[in-house]
Amino acid sequence: MHHVSEAPGAPLRGIIPPLVTPLADHSTLDLPGLERLTEHVIGGGVHGLFILGTTGEAPGLGASLKHELVRRVCGSVSRRVPVLVGISETAITESLAIAETAHRCGADALVLAPPYYFPATQDELLGYLERLAPQLPLPLFLYNMPYRPPVFAPETVRQAMTMPGIAGLKDSSGDMCYFQKIRALFADFPHASLFIGPEQLLAESVLTGAHGGVCAGANLFPKLYVALYHAAVAGDLRRTVELHGEVMEVCRLIYEAGHGASSVIKGLKCALGSLGLCSDFMAEPFQRFGEPERRRIAEAAQRLKASLT
Amino acid sequence: MHHVSEAPGAPLRGIIPPLVTPLADHSTLDLPGLERLTEHVIGGGVHGLFILGTTGEAPGLGASLKHELVRRVCGSVSRRVPVLVGISETAITESLAIAETAHRCGADALVLAPPYYFPATQDELLGYLERLAPQLPLPLFLYNMPYRPPVFAPETVRQAMTMPGIAGLKDSSGDMCYFQKIRALFADFPHASLFIGPEQLLAESVLTGAHGGVCAGANLFPKLYVALYHAAVAGDLRRTVELHGEVMEVCRLIYEAGHGASSVIKGLKCALGSLGLCSDFMAEPFQRFGEPERRRIAEAAQRLKASLT
Amino acid sequence: MHHVSEAPGAPLRGIIPPLVTPLADHSTLDLPGLERLTEHVIGGGVHGLFILGTTGEAPGLGASLKHELVRRVCGSVSRRVPVLVGISETAITESLAIAETAHRCGADALVLAPPYYFPATQDELLGYLERLAPQLPLPLFLYNMPYRPPVFAPETVRQAMTMPGIAGLKDSSGDMCYFQKIRALFADFPHASLFIGPEQLLAESVLTGAHGGVCAGANLFPKLYVALYHAAVAGDLRRTVELHGEVMEVCRLIYEAGHGASSVIKGLKCALGSLGLCSDFMAEPFQRFGEPERRRIAEAAQRLKASLT
Amino acid sequence: MHHVSEAPGAPLRGIIPPLVTPLADHSTLDLPGLERLTEHVIGGGVHGLFILGTTGEAPGLGASLKHELVRRVCGSVSRRVPVLVGISETAITESLAIAETAHRCGADALVLAPPYYFPATQDELLGYLERLAPQLPLPLFLYNMPYRPPVFAPETVRQAMTMPGIAGLKDSSGDMCYFQKIRALFADFPHASLFIGPEQLLAESVLTGAHGGVCAGANLFPKLYVALYHAAVAGDLRRTVELHGEVMEVCRLIYEAGHGASSVIKGLKCALGSLGLCSDFMAEPFQRFGEPERRRIAEAAQRLKASLT
Repeated sequence: MHHVSEAPGAPLRGIIPPLVTPLADHSTLDLPGLERLTEHVIGGGVHGLFILGTTGEAPGLGASLKHELVRRVCGSVSRRVPVLVGISETAITESLAIAETAHRCGADALVLAPPYYFPATQDELLGYLERLAPQLPLPLFLYNMPYRPPVFAPETVRQAMTMPGIAGLKDSSGDMCYFQKIRALFADFPHASLFIGPEQLLAESVLTGAHGGVCAGANLFPKLYVALYHAAVAGDLRRTVELHGEVMEVCRLIYEAGHGASSVIKGLKCALGSLGLCSDFMAEPFQRFGEPERRRIAEAAQRLKASLT
Repeated sequence: MHHVSEAPGAPLRGIIPPLVTPLADHSTLDLPGLERLTEHVIGGGVHGLFILGTTGEAPGLGASLKHELVRRVCGSVSRRVPVLVGISETAITESLAIAETAHRCGADALVLAPPYYFPATQDELLGYLERLAPQLPLPLFLYNMPYRPPVFAPETVRQAMTMPGIAGLKDSSGDMCYFQKIRALFADFPHASLFIGPEQLLAESVLTGAHGGVCAGANLFPKLYVALYHAAVAGDLRRTVELHGEVMEVCRLIYEAGHGASSVIKGLKCALGSLGLCSDFMAEPFQRFGEPERRRIAEAAQRLKASLT
Repeated sequence: MHHVSEAPGAPLRGIIPPLVTPLADHSTLDLPGLERLTEHVIGGGVHGLFILGTTGEAPGLGASLKHELVRRVCGSVSRRVPVLVGISETAITESLAIAETAHRCGADALVLAPPYYFPATQDELLGYLERLAPQLPLPLFLYNMPYRPPVFAPETVRQAMTMPGIAGLKDSSGDMCYFQKIRALFADFPHASLFIGPEQLLAESVLTGAHGGVCAGANLFPKLYVALYHAAVAGDLRRTVELHGEVMEVCRLIYEAGHGASSVIKGLKCALGSLGLCSDFMAEPFQRFGEPERRRIAEAAQRLKASLT
Repeated sequence: MHHVSEAPGAPLRGIIPPLVTPLADHSTLDLPGLERLTEHVIGGGVHGLFILGTTGEAPGLGASLKHELVRRVCGSVSRRVPVLVGISETAITESLAIAETAHRCGADALVLAPPYYFPATQDELLGYLERLAPQLPLPLFLYNMPYRPPVFAPETVRQAMTMPGIAGLKDSSGDMCYFQKIRALFADFPHASLFIGPEQLLAESVLTGAHGGVCAGANLFPKLYVALYHAAVAGDLRRTVELHGEVMEVCRLIYEAGHGASSVIKGLKCALGSLGLCSDFMAEPFQRFGEPERRRIAEAAQRLKASLT
């Protein structure tokens, strides 16, 4: 049984793609694309799905579209793998509303980056978790967003892990000194899951004890990330390093076509589009790449698809 | 006539408080408080109101509450002064929905900080403005948020000012080298308004050519900020410096009771509450100050009220 | 009498150029250039000189060249105006050695940015000042470096101002909320001088109570900055704003030819070279501008020279 | 043969402690302590020594003391292991002088963090390396300093690696996405060494292909870090993770007694002092810990010494 809500059971493990949100336009899902993408990653052996995260462009989606996405994905997945739903809204009433929809539709857990408009102190964050967690109908993962220093200090994480309903941490900060510190303190919380965000760090994280990765590239090549995860868990170092090299190639060829933080998602959607999986329409304030980048990424995606293990 | 929408007429000028949002709880406005606060600032002679800004805790408010706030304030103000409405949502569909409500209710302008989840490049920002502005039913002010470097580079501001419907810039970055650069380039845009955010910089900004200030403290002591504005515009340097000293005292006594970015709003709401103007309930993830800070701020607010010019 | 060491007398006031260090090569001063530049600024009416600051490329100069510079400048100035000497070394023994040379050669004060390799806490900074100040033979100004947040917290500045021998603060951080806070607390320290760094902020700083400016552009056009200072002190607002506009033109035309933090000094040395004042050789890791930028700056410098008040 | 200068031979590998600089006072080395510490680490099996780095408090040491340190260490080591010497001065003439002393005394390589007073652009950095490298008498390692984003962009590193005399990179930035990118591009430069700084990341770095670590804790417990290095190189994952856990305990118990960036060096010197290895005198602006922290660290150091593998 996969349910993450069976705490204090075994922690969630494996590869959980942060699902791209296929869009037809700013207020419409690309439903066939969403269906294809969901089957693509489940068919690739992933251990769960995470929707409404950074890669899912959650901040750029309107409220009703977010609720529809939750309903659609939970319906399609139909409990074949756990579904995690981001509730990183800046307003608590909106977070609670999404949590309610997630619960009603059969999702398995929630994921929270704290309100990010302006930074809260650690005391304020802890108070917020204490007030929020009891109102949530599903287990909660904390989330450190990408491209920023970790929001949750290690001591805050430790205290949060003693609260009922807190299931673990997804760390996308890329700060591995922080990550190793969390990993060490999670020795005291055997029910808690620690997931790494940046896929460039998946190999080293799992080798040194992480439970898995929430890797953007697993939208595109789920089998690669699943294979890397299994190799690392099995302690097959040679194979792990080899697959890690392939992941680094995916990053180099797909994510670096543009400048700025949006380049990863633009590149990913562009590659998914070129492989016929879903639309590459971007939520504002971003737009799909222009022709030259699109051609370059399409070629790279084909080449990677042919060559990857 | 005050309407900012009469471009290319005279630019908006004066003191425009970023209105605090009085809350009864997380999903309910403190309506009597909102009414009292609105009359308090209009009675103090302010030149406009700005709702749904940082001081208004916009990111922490749910969508339906935001729309209700727009309706209530526009109704109460009833065109006595211009009303500016923040549309700094992370999703364009939500920004457009608030803009629509603002227009329908008789607001005069919109204010936009760009989606802040992750940073867009200057090219992406400019493209976003080009696509967004034509869809807006009211003139738009750009907005650099507080506690962060300016989001809009000077060259981006220059290009934005050539677009129809862009009315000016509200700069809360506190970066005065940037501000002075914008002031210099606004010489080419006589219709454009330049407003300063941090009230600590109101005196020097207006003395050197800004059109006014969007000052949090004007919720509390509107007459002080209006008097400072008029003294600076009149070139009465002695009086300006004297009133600036009083503003610095407000900042020192009201905003620095706590730590972190939320301390300004907490202190302000606490002072407003202690003077009987409105509730000091805070949107999550923040909470009102505890007893010691509240007592200290209440005493300071009474003392300031008695002593201010 | 100008001596800053006559504390608790009147604080130092006026325009104090952070003198460019004219170089023939990496280990040799351009002595004729240094002589011309010194006479140029003194002839322009400046109220003091500051050597071995950021604009003087102090970090890029070898130890023996620094000591020679102190001797040469103190000799040339020959007490016509106060000379301030930077001792912002990362090693205290080197700071003390320069302080000793400065004292022996007749300099009037020292200027200290704390060791900048890695940040000290405020307690560590305060302890450092307590141990350092008694060993210094001359009054000391604290210094917040450009392009960084202020190093000295307001409360640290307050405590430092109670130590014997601390004469004031030169703030180049550009953070005007900080600056206004310091200005307010200096009301308790009538002997202390508060100087602004970025010349874009000179007008507003002096209008609201600063004692003067340490402005890079005063190397080039000392009379402009002196005139602006006098206009602001006299409360002549119209004239102040007019001269402030000219300073903004100097900044725009001379400092922004390149990218990055070094562009100000490169532009300044280039302009000084083009006007025949001194060599434009830059200390490593920087180099003088290439031909296109040099030509553009030379033309701008000529035009400004002809047009400035 | 260990000489790193035999390029294009095999790259340097292993554990290279960034040697603490034992001080009697601000201008005097603790010579017996330096001797004991040197023998302690060589006896522990380290593969080289790095002096005048961050852990060696290089920025806080006066010039003559630095030169003396180079002479003393090279003399004591007497070519038993390679000696790397930091030349991260802010003035090129000082860097060249230390390089000269290092060469004359028999050191094997130099290590350079670029002038850090204000940031150079990547073009400026590359130009600096092109001018500097030919003047150096020994191979050069680039160095990204701790507690800061990487200074050398990947493309700059790639170009630098094609210059004669550039031997590799020591990355203390802690940014593992960056590190993995460099590791991937070093596939094209088989002579180049890639070393990790933060010891918390030693295990994962060597497992995924780094050549070794420049780990502060190897001053204290050299055998632990050497054993971890060998386990990781041998692909003994179980043992690597076990030893990594011990390193994390060293970090937790020794480095976190205080606040701020200096806490690591203070803790390390304090532990070395408590084990009788050398003085815990700190270069300004820092000072040794007070009694409570010293007692706590001394106990931890004894306990670790007894328990470590």
